[in-house]
Amino acid sequence: MSFIARPQSLTFDAPLPLTSGAVLQDYTLAYETYGTLDAERSNAVLICHALNASHHVAGVYEGQPRSEGWWDNMVGPGKPVDTDRFFVIGINNPGSCFGSTGPMDANPATGRVWGADFPVVTVEDWVDAQARLLDALGIGTLAAVMGGSLGGMQALSWTLQYPERVRHAVVIASAPNLNAENIAFNEVARRAIVTDPDFHGGHFYEHGVIPRRGLRIARMVGHITYLSDDVMNAKFGRELREGLTPRYTTQDIEFQIESYLRHQADKFSEYFDANTYLLITRALDYFDPARTHGGGSLRAALARTAARFLLVSFTTDWRFSPARSREIVHALLENNRDVSYAEIDAPHGHDAFLLDDPRYLALVRAYFDRIAAEPAPARTSAVTLQGLAV
Amino acid sequence: MSFIARPQSLTFDAPLPLTSGAVLQDYTLAYETYGTLDAERSNAVLICHALNASHHVAGVYEGQPRSEGWWDNMVGPGKPVDTDRFFVIGINNPGSCFGSTGPMDANPATGRVWGADFPVVTVEDWVDAQARLLDALGIGTLAAVMGGSLGGMQALSWTLQYPERVRHAVVIASAPNLNAENIAFNEVARRAIVTDPDFHGGHFYEHGVIPRRGLRIARMVGHITYLSDDVMNAKFGRELREGLTPRYTTQDIEFQIESYLRHQADKFSEYFDANTYLLITRALDYFDPARTHGGGSLRAALARTAARFLLVSFTTDWRFSPARSREIVHALLENNRDVSYAEIDAPHGHDAFLLDDPRYLALVRAYFDRIAAEPAPARTSAVTLQGLAV
Repeated sequence: MSFIARPQSLTFDAPLPLTSGAVLQDYTLAYETYGTLDAERSNAVLICHALNASHHVAGVYEGQPRSEGWWDNMVGPGKPVDTDRFFVIGINNPGSCFGSTGPMDANPATGRVWGADFPVVTVEDWVDAQARLLDALGIGTLAAVMGGSLGGMQALSWTLQYPERVRHAVVIASAPNLNAENIAFNEVARRAIVTDPDFHGGHFYEHGVIPRRGLRIARMVGHITYLSDDVMNAKFGRELREGLTPRYTTQDIEFQIESYLRHQADKFSEYFDANTYLLITRALDYFDPARTHGGGSLRAALARTAARFLLVSFTTDWRFSPARSREIVHALLENNRDVSYAEIDAPHGHDAFLLDDPRYLALVRAYFDRIAAEPAPARTSAVTLQGLAV
Repeated sequence: MSFIARPQSLTFDAPLPLTSGAVLQDYTLAYETYGTLDAERSNAVLICHALNASHHVAGVYEGQPRSEGWWDNMVGPGKPVDTDRFFVIGINNPGSCFGSTGPMDANPATGRVWGADFPVVTVEDWVDAQARLLDALGIGTLAAVMGGSLGGMQALSWTLQYPERVRHAVVIASAPNLNAENIAFNEVARRAIVTDPDFHGGHFYEHGVIPRRGLRIARMVGHITYLSDDVMNAKFGRELREGLTPRYTTQDIEFQIESYLRHQADKFSEYFDANTYLLITRALDYFDPARTHGGGSLRAALARTAARFLLVSFTTDWRFSPARSREIVHALLENNRDVSYAEIDAPHGHDAFLLDDPRYLALVRAYFDRIAAEPAPARTSAVTLQGLAV
């Protein structure tokens, strides 16, 4: 049984300028915090979420014993990111659908639900929004920013957008950008959603329907890319759902893997917003710090960083393969940054970053032990609180 | 400019019993032949098609100079499978949509279009139908049966179902069965089609519509798995379609890879039948000679074979990886069969089997040169024509 988490939210009335040129006039951010901010405000750890997760990183909600956060194995009292020592912040990104301002909310300019008119948001925009939350919480410098997959991209972007506010960046199962195949899979998912007749150009809320067919397909495609070939063969192989001989049907479930995928798809289509899916996959597509900060060179981009880094990848992750993490590691080393890198020989594919591999958890624990043991940085609060809105 | 090909067809009134237990009462097979059958009837080569191809293997149709067959680089006068020496047969499988009996035809029992009621067909059923066409053409033994991908599965199945009728089997970019990931991708494609409101439970013909949205998604998913990561990065990378900076849109095309995929999807949805897509992906899923012929052991199954084999795989093919071809090679070697195996270091992924890699084409040419140089098998016609319906 985990500890009790309490969701909070904060509404900002200062406009948030976005990469696209649009501006989010006012917005709410949902977040959670675990542990206690120390007197020096030096023990804050920001956890960034990936595609379908939220600010609910760890713990359970009062009276809901099975509501564990998505990284409850990683974050909590005595966990690798130990909330007895660190003040951990989870935040839901704008454009998402779990409490922060997103496509399901009303556009204050029109009074109508945003839907597909919600502005396109980028990893950089999310990091800006996260920085404002930290400002509001009175946190200048993060002991660490951490995330897996798309969350790792946010952690990396922190070190470029706010280099002076990050002591450590923990970037897990991530990549310096999407390759063509990654974009292609995202595009399949988006087309499935957008061409679902129930999508209504992204204004389905007004029609009282949800493009569930598209969401289901999107989730199935996504899910296949989260798992490794090996783990799918080990878990499902060619096992039939019923009996030992095929029933010869094209539309009904025949193999266990089909049953599993359909179940995942149904679950997902019940809780995830279709417009958010479009926005978040696009944020993935657009992320490209080499272009944004380095004129096309990742090495040049990463010259801006001042943090120390831990990167972790998983051998069977074909969505964000170890080679992609190594690109970041090499570019950091070329800039003489302090980098630790681990490539974990785990069978679970991309999903491994959420799972209980003991070597992985021990590694992150050791890294955070090292952070906890560092002398508190003397000038942190003074320097970084300059120029903040709080 | 290729030679002129002429499509032919033959209607069979003897019922074709299917693996599922159903029976195809009568049926038409579309086919083409190139070259001349020699007096000993010993130079016939059967080419089996994969998912979306047909009996139109090579040549062009009269007055249609751009109508080259799908393997025109492989088959024809002076080509690796040289129609000056071999009598080559291309056949469209039952259940397909290019002239052989399939879901778009009328069910003679009801007079209504088959649609989703067309019986499930398997690789084994196709081989049976192909064997009947050979009977009708007076061909007992094939000099070779050849195919890539799903076509390779048919070639392999020939050596198990009619071991005495095949001298050589050329199995390219294939596998002894689908793994869980392969089935999963097929299931995504099928769900996209079946849940398209225009599918109407597979009876869309009566409604005057086509489930194009589903077909598009199916094709996009398929296409991604035909290409390698490398070739996608080389061809498209992260290149934008317009200008040098993103336009920030979730529904419009932003990257070149999206444009390419949408184009492929649109083309495919114009010519391919949705019910055929379901049937053919299911035939892929079900193919499992180890189960069908070997009690779960591929080695035991392949003990039935009498042919000599050429297997070819491509290093970057992640749909049917070289490891899957090697499973077949090992099982054949364990049975002391005559096997040649080549793993071609080509960048093009699964699609490589259709492309112009010179080493690949030279290899197939050399193999067929060897077949052509063999002394004509003395008893072929006599033995194999026994028991034929012709």
